[in-house]
Amino acid sequence: MSSEYLSNVRRLRPVVHTITNYVTANDCANLLLAAGASPIMADAPEETAQIAAMADAVVLNLGTLSTSRKEAMLLAGKAASAADKPIVLDPVGVGASGFRRETAGLLLREAEPTVIRGNRSEIRALRTGETGERGVDTADLPEGDGENARLLAKQTGAVVLQTGETDLVTDGEQVLRVQGGSDMLCLVTGAGCMLSALTGAFLAANPDRPLLAAAAAAETMSVCAEIAQRRLRTGEGNASFRTRLIDAMCNLTPETFRKWRQEA
Amino acid sequence: MSSEYLSNVRRLRPVVHTITNYVTANDCANLLLAAGASPIMADAPEETAQIAAMADAVVLNLGTLSTSRKEAMLLAGKAASAADKPIVLDPVGVGASGFRRETAGLLLREAEPTVIRGNRSEIRALRTGETGERGVDTADLPEGDGENARLLAKQTGAVVLQTGETDLVTDGEQVLRVQGGSDMLCLVTGAGCMLSALTGAFLAANPDRPLLAAAAAAETMSVCAEIAQRRLRTGEGNASFRTRLIDAMCNLTPETFRKWRQEA
Amino acid sequence: MSSEYLSNVRRLRPVVHTITNYVTANDCANLLLAAGASPIMADAPEETAQIAAMADAVVLNLGTLSTSRKEAMLLAGKAASAADKPIVLDPVGVGASGFRRETAGLLLREAEPTVIRGNRSEIRALRTGETGERGVDTADLPEGDGENARLLAKQTGAVVLQTGETDLVTDGEQVLRVQGGSDMLCLVTGAGCMLSALTGAFLAANPDRPLLAAAAAAETMSVCAEIAQRRLRTGEGNASFRTRLIDAMCNLTPETFRKWRQEA
Repeated sequence: MSSEYLSNVRRLRPVVHTITNYVTANDCANLLLAAGASPIMADAPEETAQIAAMADAVVLNLGTLSTSRKEAMLLAGKAASAADKPIVLDPVGVGASGFRRETAGLLLREAEPTVIRGNRSEIRALRTGETGERGVDTADLPEGDGENARLLAKQTGAVVLQTGETDLVTDGEQVLRVQGGSDMLCLVTGAGCMLSALTGAFLAANPDRPLLAAAAAAETMSVCAEIAQRRLRTGEGNASFRTRLIDAMCNLTPETFRKWRQEA
Repeated sequence: MSSEYLSNVRRLRPVVHTITNYVTANDCANLLLAAGASPIMADAPEETAQIAAMADAVVLNLGTLSTSRKEAMLLAGKAASAADKPIVLDPVGVGASGFRRETAGLLLREAEPTVIRGNRSEIRALRTGETGERGVDTADLPEGDGENARLLAKQTGAVVLQTGETDLVTDGEQVLRVQGGSDMLCLVTGAGCMLSALTGAFLAANPDRPLLAAAAAAETMSVCAEIAQRRLRTGEGNASFRTRLIDAMCNLTPETFRKWRQEA
Repeated sequence: MSSEYLSNVRRLRPVVHTITNYVTANDCANLLLAAGASPIMADAPEETAQIAAMADAVVLNLGTLSTSRKEAMLLAGKAASAADKPIVLDPVGVGASGFRRETAGLLLREAEPTVIRGNRSEIRALRTGETGERGVDTADLPEGDGENARLLAKQTGAVVLQTGETDLVTDGEQVLRVQGGSDMLCLVTGAGCMLSALTGAFLAANPDRPLLAAAAAAETMSVCAEIAQRRLRTGEGNASFRTRLIDAMCNLTPETFRKWRQEA
């Protein structure tokens, strides 16, 4: 089923306006290109409303947040929201500072994201307003029952995609689970950012089904991670895994997607 | 012939002050190092005039433009222009926003670039002042007769290097064509940015012949892309292509360059 | 011996707050993850004091310096200093502009770094206050007798790690030398930045011995570079070397570390 959502991305080639941190922006752009989407990276308050209005989806990522990027995201979010375009919010490290928490709250209210994509710590911090997180790439704790994700979805009206050993996707009522993926994802900076960008492409190409589109993006990323891991050779590590992950997306066809899932 | 231009880069090791977007800055720096040049990446208005004045060439790239980077580029461009140093302008996504269009116009007037390097959409938008572009990495339309490139060169006095299926290089009178390359370049973010940076190095090492130096940079990039594509293995995609592209530059000698072109 | 320092990083998984340039931030984050540390990249003045206070080490890198990042580094440096946490200063291109020189001086006074990591030109420029450097990635001159490094350590109270053909580590009294590594490091942008980030992780996990921890970080990087170079295949260049360097860190165990050094 996810393979059809990917096919729509490749067919429609949506323009994804990605406002993201400078640490992983290159990987996000190359992953979007690999998936068949067309990234535009722009984060100046002078232009983000204009660019968001012509894009097919907007991704707002809180990594390496700045005052300027906060304003740029607010303007892009409002413009996309007014034009009824899908928005993904990635609350990177939201538990790490008051600045990120306050910005996330502002974007939740003003941009009304379609999907929130975060790891378990970020989803919990976003729901509870608690802080005290350390780091953004730490391995997840056991993921419990997804109650934070479900409640956050109810609070915000957004679909919540919580990544971890098992990914959860919920609209506050239904909870879908995506198994698979690879432990190596924890050793690659920006694995989450890349999934958030990809989710933007999937929403743009499948606008009527945000819950299923987000789940399809997560499943697509999991399959690519599994392919990348299987292709790793002796002596290769996280850097080669990153390369092979994006390569896998570049080569993924609906047929190989279905075949991979049947064999797994 | 292009191989001699590359030899001069490797011999003179020019310092290329590259003011560029954060999405592809790493690739630009590694490509410059691979070519034998010495990159310096600096974009604070407090220092770009000073750094541009001691560099051998300056590259001004409009990706992820900001108010600060706009001012930094203006100062660097003026300093380089006053010192008669070659300047490359890369009008990334100039059709996507008024902010980029206005900045490009300012830099054309104040910095008087030696070479403008863009894809067909960007060159057209720059010449006509039209907007409405979507994305910056979309595959090029068929490239027509290069009339926009020729007219932009006449308007500005710059050499225009327009990349596409066939690259065009023109000073408004002569029009050179560079064939070859690889379709995979469209799937790598920053392929254009990298060529713009490389063009800066070629101009610095071959300052008396901007038209031929720009054509040589384009041909060198095309040869590297062809080598990278031939070396791609089953299961590899755009991420591996990017690695192999920079690797090819790192290993390109005048001899392999000439041999590759004779065989092609 | 260095292998024990690495073991402590892997065991304690320190959070390293890395304020660094956008050119090499991705490589720094992936190298830290490969080493077993947990990077957090944040450079907004609104949040760096808070994040530095909860991190285990702070890295201050002057590449692509900006007014905002200068303020962010000052706040992070003061917070870390007040909490007695290790701080690494990387004075990237400090000889290239007055802005960088002034910022480096400010951070030396206000943050009192534990370790200063730079190449020979940067260490000399930092000690003497001279400018006139061109580029930041130029190959090092023969390294002389390390007198600049020793004097800078005496002046500042910091351990100085000066990288070059032979790395020197000194507290102003003792001078340790780390041999090995690879010439390819000169062709990779951010090789120095990555070592500075790694040094932050080593200091955090081995806080009582900054001189030896810095030497261990340098030796660990050298071993990874040697492994990466040996694994390079025909046709591969600086881009593959970078991938293999981070991969080598990812796979380095205390056992392979010791074995590699015994065989070398």
